[in-house]
Amino acid sequence: MTTPRDPDFERRVRDSFARQRFMATLGATLDVVRAGEVHIGFSHREELTQQHGYLHAGVLASVADSACGYAALSLMEPGAGVLSVEFKINMLAPATGARFVAVGRVVRAGRTITVCTGEVRAEDGTSPVAMMQATMMAVRGKGLSD
Amino acid sequence: MTTPRDPDFERRVRDSFARQRFMATLGATLDVVRAGEVHIGFSHREELTQQHGYLHAGVLASVADSACGYAALSLMEPGAGVLSVEFKINMLAPATGARFVAVGRVVRAGRTITVCTGEVRAEDGTSPVAMMQATMMAVRGKGLSD
Amino acid sequence: MTTPRDPDFERRVRDSFARQRFMATLGATLDVVRAGEVHIGFSHREELTQQHGYLHAGVLASVADSACGYAALSLMEPGAGVLSVEFKINMLAPATGARFVAVGRVVRAGRTITVCTGEVRAEDGTSPVAMMQATMMAVRGKGLSD
Amino acid sequence: MTTPRDPDFERRVRDSFARQRFMATLGATLDVVRAGEVHIGFSHREELTQQHGYLHAGVLASVADSACGYAALSLMEPGAGVLSVEFKINMLAPATGARFVAVGRVVRAGRTITVCTGEVRAEDGTSPVAMMQATMMAVRGKGLSD
Repeated sequence: MTTPRDPDFERRVRDSFARQRFMATLGATLDVVRAGEVHIGFSHREELTQQHGYLHAGVLASVADSACGYAALSLMEPGAGVLSVEFKINMLAPATGARFVAVGRVVRAGRTITVCTGEVRAEDGTSPVAMMQATMMAVRGKGLSD
Repeated sequence: MTTPRDPDFERRVRDSFARQRFMATLGATLDVVRAGEVHIGFSHREELTQQHGYLHAGVLASVADSACGYAALSLMEPGAGVLSVEFKINMLAPATGARFVAVGRVVRAGRTITVCTGEVRAEDGTSPVAMMQATMMAVRGKGLSD
Repeated sequence: MTTPRDPDFERRVRDSFARQRFMATLGATLDVVRAGEVHIGFSHREELTQQHGYLHAGVLASVADSACGYAALSLMEPGAGVLSVEFKINMLAPATGARFVAVGRVVRAGRTITVCTGEVRAEDGTSPVAMMQATMMAVRGKGLSD
Repeated sequence: MTTPRDPDFERRVRDSFARQRFMATLGATLDVVRAGEVHIGFSHREELTQQHGYLHAGVLASVADSACGYAALSLMEPGAGVLSVEFKINMLAPATGARFVAVGRVVRAGRTITVCTGEVRAEDGTSPVAMMQATMMAVRGKGLSD
């Protein structure tokens, strides 16, 4: 995508992900970390479902948000942190299937604002179950680094 | 807001909420159910946090999505179910505080599409920490009722 | 809403609006400028319609975007300019009626990011025809002031 | 993308576009109509600008909305019409350049709801200036066909 400003970006992303307690609660794993692209895997679990037995839309949104946020962080300089300004997600199909992956990709990285797309797919599926468009912000010097 | 088409709407909403296993995982409680307005409470917990120790944006989105979805369901006729078409959420301030409430309100209820706003506030706070605009859809006769 | 940082905010907003050539093309008028709230009026015109004879969704979005942007600018300090980061709009009902008003309101004003809601109503109507949630950004020292 | 349900989809899309008076007001032209993908071209014009002399965000949104709507319509059966439920657009870079194209693509076409992405690029540019995620709805038998 773009040359990363921090050659050590993968370690920074992995360290930060490890501190996101909510990702552990969801059973999500950080599968791929590239400059400008991050994949997070997760599975169907009873405790993550909505009233019809599918994964709750909020689970898809949570994992896609983290994938987008870490895709954005992967292109930021050392010491910068990332916050979600906003995101929008469309649910495209019921999240049937056993295992899923959310892929976050940077579309444009600015100094302050980074725009990303996120896509959630069943691991054995061809078409996405959800699609996100997200705005991330770099924060600096507020004790919010990484 | 509008006269509910189902006089028994509160029971339907409460029954459906009770089946959303993910709300139990988040420790969320269904506090208020009115025709066109639903409040869901939840608390800060370590296992729901992001890398800076605040509640993950996905937690705010998940609870606001359920509040919006149930506000929409409260105005639907018996037998109809609700699905999230899409939602968009802005994070307004770090979710500091011990206890929060997400309020979902119907702005316009159509036969197929219902549009809602959601707001997340700290219980002891004055200004919202997140704001949602959501599109919900009524589903009928697909084994997805309530 | 908030105390404006520029006592002369109304003049700044009016001067900038007057430079938005597209608002003139739409026949839009700047009706109300308060600190954190701006109203823009516009009328049904043949040249602004979509295929069914209603106002095009893009017209509603354009005017609501300007109303949100100027609501945000009204709270910024002298010399700052405003850019739209993103917006999301729901169409709630066909835009029937002769005259409309878009109201933009600041929900949260930060140093960089301001979040606004926009609402479009028919002047003689009770319920909104469109609803927006928008993210605006202050720009400084890039030749983009006001 | 998908096999069109109407072999005559291009004519239907072109006829409907010709009735969108607002597209003529913007000087927009329907450049490409494929099953599930539509391109609309437009140019920088003084009367479409915002306060800094760039194209107004609402212009980008209007053309991208039509491109998404017609991409959706291209996959609908004869007699169905299309309405915008909602859209969200991120502005990625100032719309500098003389000529632009908005490309709308269907991501998922359901019986009622179709989800699309839209992208606006300068004709001589490599990276997009705006990106949209839109929800379209099929309408039937309400005098809103095509």
